[in-house]
Amino acid sequence: MKDFRLHLLVTISLSWVGCTNVCKEEKSNTSEPHYILHPIGKIVKEKNRTLIVLEKKYQSGLLGMEQFSQVTVIYWFDRNDTPDKREILQVHPRGDKQNPIRGVFATHSPVRPNLIAISRCKILSVRDNIVEIDDIDAFPDSPVLDLKN
Amino acid sequence: MKDFRLHLLVTISLSWVGCTNVCKEEKSNTSEPHYILHPIGKIVKEKNRTLIVLEKKYQSGLLGMEQFSQVTVIYWFDRNDTPDKREILQVHPRGDKQNPIRGVFATHSPVRPNLIAISRCKILSVRDNIVEIDDIDAFPDSPVLDLKN
Repeated sequence: MKDFRLHLLVTISLSWVGCTNVCKEEKSNTSEPHYILHPIGKIVKEKNRTLIVLEKKYQSGLLGMEQFSQVTVIYWFDRNDTPDKREILQVHPRGDKQNPIRGVFATHSPVRPNLIAISRCKILSVRDNIVEIDDIDAFPDSPVLDLKN
Repeated sequence: MKDFRLHLLVTISLSWVGCTNVCKEEKSNTSEPHYILHPIGKIVKEKNRTLIVLEKKYQSGLLGMEQFSQVTVIYWFDRNDTPDKREILQVHPRGDKQNPIRGVFATHSPVRPNLIAISRCKILSVRDNIVEIDDIDAFPDSPVLDLKN
């Protein structure tokens, strides 16, 4: 019984230390002011078609979209979502070293502190949870954050 | 000694339960795919002036901004950042019940799942960490997320 209790004590102590570390890790990302984004869908490229495929639960947010010829697509530069890239504040525009260094806020660079991308696109059709657009300069599967008219 | 060990065991057990709850709470917000935004500054309205005041650490991201006459300001509808409001998917455009219900993605409504606001503004001046603009339809102190040219 004594052994069992000691074993339990050690186990719980170790669990507690482990849990404390997890908590610290979660908090280190969120100790500064911050806002949380959840993707509402993603960019799908298949054959020659470009689709914005929303999660089914967001489908009702598309009501009336078919009245419009264009949509502003807000998505996330998820390929650049690393602490290092999010610290870059100056770039050569369009990645061309011939272009003088400029602050990222004076560019459309895909590296920036908040990786928000904006593109105005032509709507080809709206069906269920899918908006077909003519094209978008985004990688396949890029997370979509918002649409606006 | 036995009493002490039992006491320690109970204490650690309670701490562990407490910590587990904290971890669960942190994770409940972040268990789904998500991205983190940190404000880069805020909208300041003083007298008849409208300023985008960046945090000092982001100032170098403004290099070259003075070459441009306009800037796209991306900010956060922070007054609506509640779980309830972020679940609204359909609205009467411009809050007018005469307007037929429409999906938020086919509007500029300030309630939407991701509270991203976009406004194109005229630049009046750029100095240090401050961009003065002509005006913006945003509440004072709204958190600014990004600027683009």
